[in-house]
Amino acid sequence: MLSKNKIKYIRALELKKNRREEQAFVAEGHKLVGDLLGYFPCKLLLATSHWLDANPTVAADEIIEVTQDELTRASLQKTPQEVLAVFSQPVYDLNPEVLKNSLCLALDDVQDPGNLGTIIRLADWFGIEHIFCSAGTADVYNPKTVQATMGALARVKVHYCSLPQLIRELDGIPVYGTFLNGNTIYSEPLSAHGLIVMGNEGKGVSPEVEKLVNKKLYIPNYPQERITSESLNVAIATAVVCAEFRRRLSV
Amino acid sequence: MLSKNKIKYIRALELKKNRREEQAFVAEGHKLVGDLLGYFPCKLLLATSHWLDANPTVAADEIIEVTQDELTRASLQKTPQEVLAVFSQPVYDLNPEVLKNSLCLALDDVQDPGNLGTIIRLADWFGIEHIFCSAGTADVYNPKTVQATMGALARVKVHYCSLPQLIRELDGIPVYGTFLNGNTIYSEPLSAHGLIVMGNEGKGVSPEVEKLVNKKLYIPNYPQERITSESLNVAIATAVVCAEFRRRLSV
Repeated sequence: MLSKNKIKYIRALELKKNRREEQAFVAEGHKLVGDLLGYFPCKLLLATSHWLDANPTVAADEIIEVTQDELTRASLQKTPQEVLAVFSQPVYDLNPEVLKNSLCLALDDVQDPGNLGTIIRLADWFGIEHIFCSAGTADVYNPKTVQATMGALARVKVHYCSLPQLIRELDGIPVYGTFLNGNTIYSEPLSAHGLIVMGNEGKGVSPEVEKLVNKKLYIPNYPQERITSESLNVAIATAVVCAEFRRRLSV
Repeated sequence: MLSKNKIKYIRALELKKNRREEQAFVAEGHKLVGDLLGYFPCKLLLATSHWLDANPTVAADEIIEVTQDELTRASLQKTPQEVLAVFSQPVYDLNPEVLKNSLCLALDDVQDPGNLGTIIRLADWFGIEHIFCSAGTADVYNPKTVQATMGALARVKVHYCSLPQLIRELDGIPVYGTFLNGNTIYSEPLSAHGLIVMGNEGKGVSPEVEKLVNKKLYIPNYPQERITSESLNVAIATAVVCAEFRRRLSV
């Protein structure tokens, strides 16, 4: 039996201020919850008897068997699945030495939660373990972001910080970014380690961060003389850039 | 003054069956409407006096000056902008000879309207002028798709057809697709022309179409031994594949 208070608690986590206050976030669906269990402490898990029968060893502070109807009332999704879990937000330690020897992403006010989730998922694919987000970037624990990560959130660590301050602290690392006046990425030397900055959907990289980018890149359109869109979606551009960094290491 | 009937007509175009019956679709916002005017006949345009003053030569069968409040009532978007337009759906002729000498995309039940729109936008960037969609693919005139194309819909032609039949008709062209058991794209020869098949978000390419793919590709994750996500989002995978086809032609 699911109490009204529990439903209220879960639905309140749709808002960032409540997620921050509770240091918690919601994930839904068999695949996603399965991927996150074991990585994040689970505070509360709602599941149908069917799901619980299939997952008898699941560990959570509290487990409540619910009907599909109860799940629908608690769910933040349009089409609730068999399981919903409330996880604790992780706290990550940062070691600057590790960062200096890694390829990392920095997101400068990427505002769409879906774009952020998609970027986390592709970062996982390309072995990028740390993403640094400006304060104006979407919240990683927004349900849309969590769902779009498809479980990659378990492996990719997302940090919120001042990007100019971060870049100054990582003094000396190569800082890449995509700009319409950058050099074609295919003819630029790319290092195995460094920071790749991606900007806001409409405005691109902020002037303050742009000053700290020392390698400006451009994804060439094809053929170059053809009239085309003004830009690529930020998640798409991130993917093409990350793929090219990794291709260089594999050929 | 905007009549209730006009509001009803526009809002009805949120549904595919009405869009098909009227052979029309809705686009909203200064940038998008501006990009599509001149490419598609405009049946109806609603705009604020501010927008109309700034665009005095706009051509449409019917132009109605509206208040922001009226626009909000007609709009299919959460945050309506200054202008909304109803365009006629285009009818495209297909020349198989042109297709045989082009790089084209085929989408096999890509169901998310946002993914479809993002793919149209990136296809435009990479100079892909034709996208073939299976009947189970999202509708290109879904408002979410139209908005996500960011105007690329003006230059990329989207066709709905049977993909197996298309591939048989284009007899002899190379047919590429991404599969988890494919060969690393970076070590495969890629032709300048051909068809790239991308599959459904969950199920991938259907077995019937898979049989007709003669070049199976794989986007390698990095590093290969690391545990990672099961797959990339379909729009992300499409971008990485298209970028690599175009990179080959530019180096």
